[in-house]
Amino acid sequence: MSTITAFETLDVRFPTSLMLDGSDAMNPDPDYSAAYLRIVTDSDDGLSGHGFVFTIGRGNEVEVAAIDALASRFVGRNVEELLADMGATWKEMLHDSQLRWLGPEKGVMHMAIGAVINALWDLRAKRSGEPLWKHLAGFSPEEILDLVDLRYLSDAITRDEALEILRAARDGIGEREQELIANGYPAYTTGPGWLGYDDAKLERLAKEAVASGFAQIKLKVGADIEDDKRRLRIAREAVGPDIRIAVDANQRWDVDEAVEWMSQLAEYDLAWIEEPTSPDDILGHAEIARRLAPMPVATGEHVANRVIFKQMLQAKSLDILQMDACRVGGVNENISILLLAAKFGIPVCPHAGGVGLCETVQHLSMFDYLAVSGTKSGRMIEFADHLHEHFASPISVSSGRYWPPTAPGASSEMLQSSIAEYGYPGGSYWVANPL
Amino acid sequence: MSTITAFETLDVRFPTSLMLDGSDAMNPDPDYSAAYLRIVTDSDDGLSGHGFVFTIGRGNEVEVAAIDALASRFVGRNVEELLADMGATWKEMLHDSQLRWLGPEKGVMHMAIGAVINALWDLRAKRSGEPLWKHLAGFSPEEILDLVDLRYLSDAITRDEALEILRAARDGIGEREQELIANGYPAYTTGPGWLGYDDAKLERLAKEAVASGFAQIKLKVGADIEDDKRRLRIAREAVGPDIRIAVDANQRWDVDEAVEWMSQLAEYDLAWIEEPTSPDDILGHAEIARRLAPMPVATGEHVANRVIFKQMLQAKSLDILQMDACRVGGVNENISILLLAAKFGIPVCPHAGGVGLCETVQHLSMFDYLAVSGTKSGRMIEFADHLHEHFASPISVSSGRYWPPTAPGASSEMLQSSIAEYGYPGGSYWVANPL
Repeated sequence: MSTITAFETLDVRFPTSLMLDGSDAMNPDPDYSAAYLRIVTDSDDGLSGHGFVFTIGRGNEVEVAAIDALASRFVGRNVEELLADMGATWKEMLHDSQLRWLGPEKGVMHMAIGAVINALWDLRAKRSGEPLWKHLAGFSPEEILDLVDLRYLSDAITRDEALEILRAARDGIGEREQELIANGYPAYTTGPGWLGYDDAKLERLAKEAVASGFAQIKLKVGADIEDDKRRLRIAREAVGPDIRIAVDANQRWDVDEAVEWMSQLAEYDLAWIEEPTSPDDILGHAEIARRLAPMPVATGEHVANRVIFKQMLQAKSLDILQMDACRVGGVNENISILLLAAKFGIPVCPHAGGVGLCETVQHLSMFDYLAVSGTKSGRMIEFADHLHEHFASPISVSSGRYWPPTAPGASSEMLQSSIAEYGYPGGSYWVANPL
Repeated sequence: MSTITAFETLDVRFPTSLMLDGSDAMNPDPDYSAAYLRIVTDSDDGLSGHGFVFTIGRGNEVEVAAIDALASRFVGRNVEELLADMGATWKEMLHDSQLRWLGPEKGVMHMAIGAVINALWDLRAKRSGEPLWKHLAGFSPEEILDLVDLRYLSDAITRDEALEILRAARDGIGEREQELIANGYPAYTTGPGWLGYDDAKLERLAKEAVASGFAQIKLKVGADIEDDKRRLRIAREAVGPDIRIAVDANQRWDVDEAVEWMSQLAEYDLAWIEEPTSPDDILGHAEIARRLAPMPVATGEHVANRVIFKQMLQAKSLDILQMDACRVGGVNENISILLLAAKFGIPVCPHAGGVGLCETVQHLSMFDYLAVSGTKSGRMIEFADHLHEHFASPISVSSGRYWPPTAPGASSEMLQSSIAEYGYPGGSYWVANPL
């Protein structure tokens, strides 16, 4: 028996704005950051649980305060009890009525719930000796259902329907695990397409992406239509006709504007238009999808919770669902989103990049392939080649694929040396380069 | 010319859970709290601007951290410039791309934007020598439009349509001001209906409400159907057939559950069912409204922003729109919500109660009457008799009406003595009664 003896929260910020990595039509100068949590126990195993919220700089300290408010409740609690019923542990945070007022189930406080439960998942998977994707796939359908909260979802998916999906996925799960280990999980790359890159860099990176085995790249759009056309022409020439090109507007437009702008780009044979408008605008996305069809609409990285996703599926607002490992309430809520997507037959292509999002979300896609949707058809995980060197178990991406992590845990642990350097404002980098 | 020299943020909490004031089906034990902001200048006038976010206890410190992150940017800035263009001042916060990531436009960070801009409105109105409702009504239609951000709204209301609404309301504005001063603005009371009150207290308070001149009361429901029936019977007998009774489920149900539960209560001739399900569930509310018609559906106190309200109006999710002074991004965003409601012909009956919500939201309803919808028809402001004694300019409610405030400002200034007593955790009350 062991006890949670302490937790440590850290404000970690990387000066990515200097290179315009991550620049898009709404986010010209992000400093990729993590509100980071480490949960410590008195067990002899020496294992700790790591989780975080991804932010883009200012306000990271607010997210740290939110994680503090939640994590403090677990100090002194029995670890085995908390880990044995991860559904109950998650719901204890979700249903804290006083904290719920601050959302409910959205924004700073909800993402903090995700960081805390993800840190506990990291600890649980480490204790099991398995990577999280494999650990989760070992749960029975009933055990998986106990992890989620179907409140507010029953008009779209009942408990019985969810159970049916999970039971059906038991067939062939062992074969799919072998197949995943042998062939990996498809990736696409956003590397070439940041808005702050010049044409030569775009062209070079697009060619490199094809040479590296990626079957899809993604470009940021939405700042200037003529720039978008020129950049798409350059990208299409660089990659040839067989590589898919997706575009991402990062919430730049209103409904009519999205339709008009994207109609001008349709000739470039696009894989999808991502985030054409506000992530809260279910009906707006539905209208855009209807008017731009057959061009697929993708969204999700800023969708606040399962209730918004449910409606986007009901209203046909999206053709590709882009879950994010750190936006909603962690692993548990993301499982309910995977179930909704499976019910509606919509492929999940997770948002990643930032810092640590690739590391964490890969587990969810691989779990989905084994235990929920049972397929990789139409599915890819985003890849951006930033900041992986700061993680204890960085992703393995080659030949255009994510290769399943083998280290125990959720791949969410950052290196101590990185924290010492990029802790804000006291890390060595920020002391030497104050804002 | 003057400069913002400092700001002070305070965590203020009232131990309301001891009395079960404010108890409902989702919030059994709220401690009404304020993440409170005071903005100080070097002007000779000695005026300061006050704003806050209402929370119900734990997590109030997270909201304080969010206000700190925003308010710090204004220290050293020219006051006259900030106050002269309140639209630009608001949008500077709204469009900070790094902070926007923490929402976007929802939850902790968005409410903090509301607190900061509301504090600046308080300062501006004090400088003008007018109460905020009158000060805002003195803006021209074009000046009012400059305060709002129509991004993401153009599929529901265009700039020209908004201008037309505001111009039409110029007719008779002087007469309506006189009428408002003479007759006040209708109120309804939630005082009798908290779930934690016993039957005798409910009956006594319901009778007192009628004797005090209220034409509508509200009861909390959703914990137990038989309790709800009994309490509604008691309330109906206490108030007689001519007083309206609304009920409030505080997000307790899924869609089918809401319809089934409320169908059993329809015989009590209800004014509305409030928050039947998740405040994010636009389509769910629409389905409930359709199936329960003609019983009106009300919602809004937890609606995160104008984009969700827009869709609720488009989808016919609500019959009564319950804006909240401190949930969305302050006065500016609430003006856009008033414009949307006017466009769709939906009455606004603001959420109030808590601590300071009555004080602040009354200005918006009175402004709406003068300068936006131009009518009080079907409109009431919620009233709950809690904690008004802590404000420098508390509401004046009698004969079932709010009487227009006359003191300069937004009525958002809390007494120093109250802050000294209920500041958390260092105030005299909390030192004597630690949690």
